[in-house]
Amino acid sequence: MRRTRIVILGAGFAGLQAAQSLAGVEAEVWLIDRQNYHTFVPLLYQVATAQLEPYHIAYPVRRLLRRAKNVNFCWAEILQIEADRQVVVTDRGEFAYDFLVVATGSRAQFLGISGAAEYAFALKTLADAIALRNQILTCFERATQILDPQARQALLSFVIVGGGTTGVEVAGALNEWVKGALRRDFPTLDAHSVQITLVHAGTRLFPEFPDALGDFAVRHLQRLGVTVMLETRVCGVSADWVELEQGQILPTATPIWAAGLAVAHPKLSLDVTVSSTGKLWVQSTLQLADYDNIYALGDLAHVLHRGQPLAGVAPEALQQGVTVAQNLKRQLRGVTPQPFRYFQKGRLAIIGGYSGVGRIAGVNLTGFLAWSLWLLVHLIYLPGYRNRLFVLLTWLQSYVRRDRSVGHILRSASSTQTVTQPLKSP
Amino acid sequence: MRRTRIVILGAGFAGLQAAQSLAGVEAEVWLIDRQNYHTFVPLLYQVATAQLEPYHIAYPVRRLLRRAKNVNFCWAEILQIEADRQVVVTDRGEFAYDFLVVATGSRAQFLGISGAAEYAFALKTLADAIALRNQILTCFERATQILDPQARQALLSFVIVGGGTTGVEVAGALNEWVKGALRRDFPTLDAHSVQITLVHAGTRLFPEFPDALGDFAVRHLQRLGVTVMLETRVCGVSADWVELEQGQILPTATPIWAAGLAVAHPKLSLDVTVSSTGKLWVQSTLQLADYDNIYALGDLAHVLHRGQPLAGVAPEALQQGVTVAQNLKRQLRGVTPQPFRYFQKGRLAIIGGYSGVGRIAGVNLTGFLAWSLWLLVHLIYLPGYRNRLFVLLTWLQSYVRRDRSVGHILRSASSTQTVTQPLKSP
Repeated sequence: MRRTRIVILGAGFAGLQAAQSLAGVEAEVWLIDRQNYHTFVPLLYQVATAQLEPYHIAYPVRRLLRRAKNVNFCWAEILQIEADRQVVVTDRGEFAYDFLVVATGSRAQFLGISGAAEYAFALKTLADAIALRNQILTCFERATQILDPQARQALLSFVIVGGGTTGVEVAGALNEWVKGALRRDFPTLDAHSVQITLVHAGTRLFPEFPDALGDFAVRHLQRLGVTVMLETRVCGVSADWVELEQGQILPTATPIWAAGLAVAHPKLSLDVTVSSTGKLWVQSTLQLADYDNIYALGDLAHVLHRGQPLAGVAPEALQQGVTVAQNLKRQLRGVTPQPFRYFQKGRLAIIGGYSGVGRIAGVNLTGFLAWSLWLLVHLIYLPGYRNRLFVLLTWLQSYVRRDRSVGHILRSASSTQTVTQPLKSP
Repeated sequence: MRRTRIVILGAGFAGLQAAQSLAGVEAEVWLIDRQNYHTFVPLLYQVATAQLEPYHIAYPVRRLLRRAKNVNFCWAEILQIEADRQVVVTDRGEFAYDFLVVATGSRAQFLGISGAAEYAFALKTLADAIALRNQILTCFERATQILDPQARQALLSFVIVGGGTTGVEVAGALNEWVKGALRRDFPTLDAHSVQITLVHAGTRLFPEFPDALGDFAVRHLQRLGVTVMLETRVCGVSADWVELEQGQILPTATPIWAAGLAVAHPKLSLDVTVSSTGKLWVQSTLQLADYDNIYALGDLAHVLHRGQPLAGVAPEALQQGVTVAQNLKRQLRGVTPQPFRYFQKGRLAIIGGYSGVGRIAGVNLTGFLAWSLWLLVHLIYLPGYRNRLFVLLTWLQSYVRRDRSVGHILRSASSTQTVTQPLKSP
């Protein structure tokens, strides 16, 4: 008799947690992901702004699963789920499953805006973060090499679209970088000519927090020197500018996209209801309505908490991973799965300039306390003692000395060198 | 009156040292490189074998030059030197010079062997090292996914061409990695089926050391489980095998090239004599014979020490960089340049398995002492306190626990995924 096989799709917070919680069960577990490492997404913006090395926020999946002898890893692109045959199709072959856990997460959502998918820098993967860092450094290098003031100003202008946590984090951290390391490394450039603009469609930054915290973030960013444009929609993006709905053109070589996420899942050959945002409807147990042996969780599942959809942050995914593992164990024992209950520990967001916002146990936090709590919480949740130590040392160094340790324009292929601007003799 | 301008080509050991030693002189100094970081080449093999993060052996050039206010950096591809116009042509424009320092180093030498340039993995740049690490990890991942034993064996076979220091270092470090981290991360693969073969054309490994040390290296590598083939020449390379001159085919998905270097310099519009190996003849002062205002140094200069050409190691380049800076200062004062004198401090090479060889003050060293000295010396010379600390911590961890911290298959572009082997259901 074949052992029961559980297949988990995606090694993000939700899928990896489910796999780790299934260590030791009487089943063969397969975790499949297109990357061989787990990415600690909340720190991606620090890679994009040259604060942390990419390796310190990514952890090889196999190492995380070393002690889980019944859990296997497969590095593959997931193509399709065929529920009638109980099979997952990947580019490395097919996986038959008895139970399936779908946790393939989300991707950047470009809202159909012309040029956004082609030209804007998203911040969803480690490769995205490295590409954005390379781009920002390239802009500074090129700005030292050209004489045309308009072209130079476009290189030194950065437009961030979207005023949720990612957008605010990038704006704040980019500002710190410009005022610290970049000012020292590029003494021939005028640091005051650098323009950072945050464009947000809503009336307040941080829509997921109480209004007072969003207002605080606007004031703090403005004090740091970031231009904040609220109630402003983008209608077009190119390699050289961002166009606003009211007709204004913001020249920039670096449009940064932080305006929302869409679900990302393989082709589904199964009967599934989706929400208005494309998320998969699940029962309170996180099982799909018509398939007791398929769970969906994390960013792609439509899960309610006190009548509201979950926000898509890491603690939600981690807790769902634990619940799914517990429910699978119940099903293996022939017991009925239990509903998922989210335990909201509070929320924090970092702004930059030694300031953040937060709401914990019904209390609003702002400033240095929220900032330090944010760093502490993320340090604790980061996988691996070595990563924690190296990130802690890097933070100590960079926040005390207001400097950056990373500054490499590092591409994988040695021959790749992008030339984006016209040449002039220095 | 325009300030005297010194242009330095290449931010390797020689060029960077010259630039740093020219801090504070009464001249405008420009350092030009195609990368914005300096690579600590002797540790490249540790990046290729997943021991160190690439960022810890590369240092942004601008940071190294922060205190040298008269030294500027330009990130550009150097195309041509025109001695009659006293101009360097780059892809970012032209640089007029009064004095020129050519230190563009070397590149991998494929000796015209069919397929070597296309299919073999060289180890000369940081991007090369990352590509080799990605390849080795990809081979292990793919080996878990295919059933055909021949194809799997080719994935688990590694052929290193060239038995100088780089070839031996890679063979030893790959062996350590396989026996430590890879065995633990891939429990379904048989670690004994991994084959590492070192192919060397000469009669002894480490031709630059006394014979006894080369013999020691062969015995040590064999004891570790590496197959060493001496007096064996390669005549062809493909994506699937390496062909030897005597007709034998060694199946491998990963041919690694460590068989020598050729000079790398831009197009030269000047009268220059080259040696049989293509190196530029220089006077004892490191000036070109016909151009008192052009210096050549490092890997591309033909410099003799006690009648023998220099070997091309970092201490030679560093000392030449200092001499060139001193001679330029003399020329600026109207004084005659002085000859370069190499001070040979000794030589060390690492084998792996906690062993190395060395020759210091006429004494041969082998084993653990040479190994520890090698690590110590390279730690001291590595630029930056943070890099030194992180490398030291990583070494402590990896040599005590016989493990590896890195294990990411990390490419710059998120969509890049190379499929090299046929698919089979696991």
